[in-house]
Amino acid sequence: MSTTPETSADTAQVTRTLARFVVNSQPADLPRDVVHEASRGLLNWMGCALGAAHHETVNVAHDALAPFFGAPQAQLVGRAERADVLHAALLNGIASHVLDFDDTHFRAIHPSAPVLPAVLAFADWRGVSGLDFVHAYVLGVEVEERVGLSVFPEHYDRGYHITGTAGVFGAAAAIGKLLKLDEQRMAWALGIAATQSAGLREMFGSMCKSLHPGKAAQNGMSAALMAERGYTSSERAIEAKRGFAQVMSTRFDPTVITSGLGERYEIMQNMYKPFACGLVVHAVIDGCLQLRRDFNLKAADIKRISATVSPLVMELTAKREPRTGLESKFSVYHALAVAIVRGAAGEAEFSTEAALDPQVVALRSRVEATADAGIRKLEGRIVIEMNDGRVLERHVAHALGTLEHPMSDADLEAKFRGLAHGVLPDTRLDELIKACWGVANLKDAGEVSRLAAHD
Amino acid sequence: MSTTPETSADTAQVTRTLARFVVNSQPADLPRDVVHEASRGLLNWMGCALGAAHHETVNVAHDALAPFFGAPQAQLVGRAERADVLHAALLNGIASHVLDFDDTHFRAIHPSAPVLPAVLAFADWRGVSGLDFVHAYVLGVEVEERVGLSVFPEHYDRGYHITGTAGVFGAAAAIGKLLKLDEQRMAWALGIAATQSAGLREMFGSMCKSLHPGKAAQNGMSAALMAERGYTSSERAIEAKRGFAQVMSTRFDPTVITSGLGERYEIMQNMYKPFACGLVVHAVIDGCLQLRRDFNLKAADIKRISATVSPLVMELTAKREPRTGLESKFSVYHALAVAIVRGAAGEAEFSTEAALDPQVVALRSRVEATADAGIRKLEGRIVIEMNDGRVLERHVAHALGTLEHPMSDADLEAKFRGLAHGVLPDTRLDELIKACWGVANLKDAGEVSRLAAHD
Repeated sequence: MSTTPETSADTAQVTRTLARFVVNSQPADLPRDVVHEASRGLLNWMGCALGAAHHETVNVAHDALAPFFGAPQAQLVGRAERADVLHAALLNGIASHVLDFDDTHFRAIHPSAPVLPAVLAFADWRGVSGLDFVHAYVLGVEVEERVGLSVFPEHYDRGYHITGTAGVFGAAAAIGKLLKLDEQRMAWALGIAATQSAGLREMFGSMCKSLHPGKAAQNGMSAALMAERGYTSSERAIEAKRGFAQVMSTRFDPTVITSGLGERYEIMQNMYKPFACGLVVHAVIDGCLQLRRDFNLKAADIKRISATVSPLVMELTAKREPRTGLESKFSVYHALAVAIVRGAAGEAEFSTEAALDPQVVALRSRVEATADAGIRKLEGRIVIEMNDGRVLERHVAHALGTLEHPMSDADLEAKFRGLAHGVLPDTRLDELIKACWGVANLKDAGEVSRLAAHD
Repeated sequence: MSTTPETSADTAQVTRTLARFVVNSQPADLPRDVVHEASRGLLNWMGCALGAAHHETVNVAHDALAPFFGAPQAQLVGRAERADVLHAALLNGIASHVLDFDDTHFRAIHPSAPVLPAVLAFADWRGVSGLDFVHAYVLGVEVEERVGLSVFPEHYDRGYHITGTAGVFGAAAAIGKLLKLDEQRMAWALGIAATQSAGLREMFGSMCKSLHPGKAAQNGMSAALMAERGYTSSERAIEAKRGFAQVMSTRFDPTVITSGLGERYEIMQNMYKPFACGLVVHAVIDGCLQLRRDFNLKAADIKRISATVSPLVMELTAKREPRTGLESKFSVYHALAVAIVRGAAGEAEFSTEAALDPQVVALRSRVEATADAGIRKLEGRIVIEMNDGRVLERHVAHALGTLEHPMSDADLEAKFRGLAHGVLPDTRLDELIKACWGVANLKDAGEVSRLAAHD
């Protein structure tokens, strides 16, 4: 523990301080670059959700839960159906993360997946101005990141999927803001969220990984709606002795939550993935793609690929023989082999077809990966030994998509089109892109949700 | 850790073993006393849920969530409304526990609150034979108790409300059984439940305490329904390195889960509360009521009441000046004062009116409680010093409601009538009592749910 929470006046007020910040924040407070980043985040999120709209994971969840849908209040993105807002938040939340292609804060948490599905469903249902929409989204990201980072990395190391466990706070704050909760009720909303905080890393590689942001969106939304009516919780849910931080982590630094609120925005630390798998593998994929391009490499000429990676890579993606598209996202061996064989690492390269492709399987057996504690999370080294004796090397300090080397607006549009093509007509995609870039100026941001309908 | 789970063959199969047991268990396997205990559990649960059907906590949750209700598949107990089964499970789950008067396993967990609301809603929706109903209920209790006890008490000590965190496994197993899931899908159901396991003890004293079994019932039910359709999870959700037990506890004894499955039933360890507050206070309430009766005590004649209690009492119920009915349940001082003033400790004695009653408040200030590590959880000592100099003492080794001194069937009926009187007409209560005692013989156990409707 960084402090002794029970005796620190500051810690005693963490939940309250965070609630007060959210309640008092005004849309006009947001700097222009923050508003623009929200547009980027929305466009990237929408592409990921559309790309997964008919994924088996979403289909199964939809079919299991459709008998319980309420009134058709909000659109299921990329599909024909509408659902009550709580189910829409859940299913769009699952869709967000199925491809593992959604945004990532530079330290932890996929920020949009637990927040945007709730905000979008709410906007579709009640009608929300574009600026209020952006404001709620930004505040949701702010809250989930600060809560998550206050217990990071010990909380994550312990085995919690922080996108789920912290995400629920973000959804509660965002919807609480749209509901115009007062400070008391906002604190309750955070408390009701805290006591539903859940998600285990053991689920990585199964459909449950994307359930986590889905449930975070759904539970955070219902937390705010219950608090609005006066459902009470502890008002010290984050910092108390038996509250979120101390129960679910061995580290808690309350100043991460309370310092500089409103002075900087965590959404500015948002990164977008160019490759359709976990971020930790991106640097070595980038290295392979660079070498392939620069030396016109062919898989058959390669004797061995040796990657030196951060220890996290081996912890998360050491699946030697992936048999499905989902499993292949957790295989550094697959990622590097497919990048060389196909010259790309998009969604198609992490399909079951690609995982079973004999050419990829053959090269995969010649990929080695070694953890090195001296390598940062988004850094990597590649050495390729050729059959002709050449040895090619590449050190990637910052992969494409990192804060040091961000995807451009045009990159994001191209990624969106790649994911959404065929899901909705191209003319509709043009409209959606326009609506995302201009979301802050929309009279009713619910339009974004409705544009994502499969007619 | 009691074992090294990653290397123990037994531990490697805990989730699978539990799933197999639930799948293979047959109604005819249940001993007669187990079936009878299920009737007792149902009757006691129904009384608690009816007694709280119009409690503010239930009303607030209902009003917040009604806009999202789906088809009217299942009855909200004691109310006019029906809801989709997931919301019925949630709201009846909240109602179960609001009064803190529901059943308690002798070591941990309120077993019926997370399981029965799910099973009852399912029966109302799909129709289930009485014997299948009892079987699913018994298996749900079995699973949640074994999972909970495998990490008890460290998991609870850490700050998790085990009724929520373990309860979700019970609801998933019970509904999975009614859905006739195969072993693979049952393991997934347990996994989807595991990754939604949540609930913080910090919420005690707020409306969120009863949210925990409600969400456990709802989430466990949806876990089984999703698994039925093929939603995948880890198949080692309980025992894996980043699974439930190792992430959420510092102790894990897998043999608690796997040993003697089907040979003994945890529901036989079920206790029913005669008093409307936490079990840990019952021994000293019992002591006060005995002394009051034996010596015809009047509050005004009492100089001081001194209770010697287990340390847990002071941890859970040390609220010195409760201002509401809910807070008064967490005040050993209130419990003893009101027992003396009114000669009872039912729901009426833990109302806001009672908490603010000047006579009770006056005596409360003369109650002392001292923790003694030598006192067991359900044991207590009372010393009452009278103004006339007499000193009265009572040691209660086992309070009424414990396994050593259980409530009789007649006691349970009387408790039911006390709670449900006025909520439904007396003739309806007679029918409900009959249906609960004979539940195992009902052609359709959904009848129990429908009888609980407020016409």
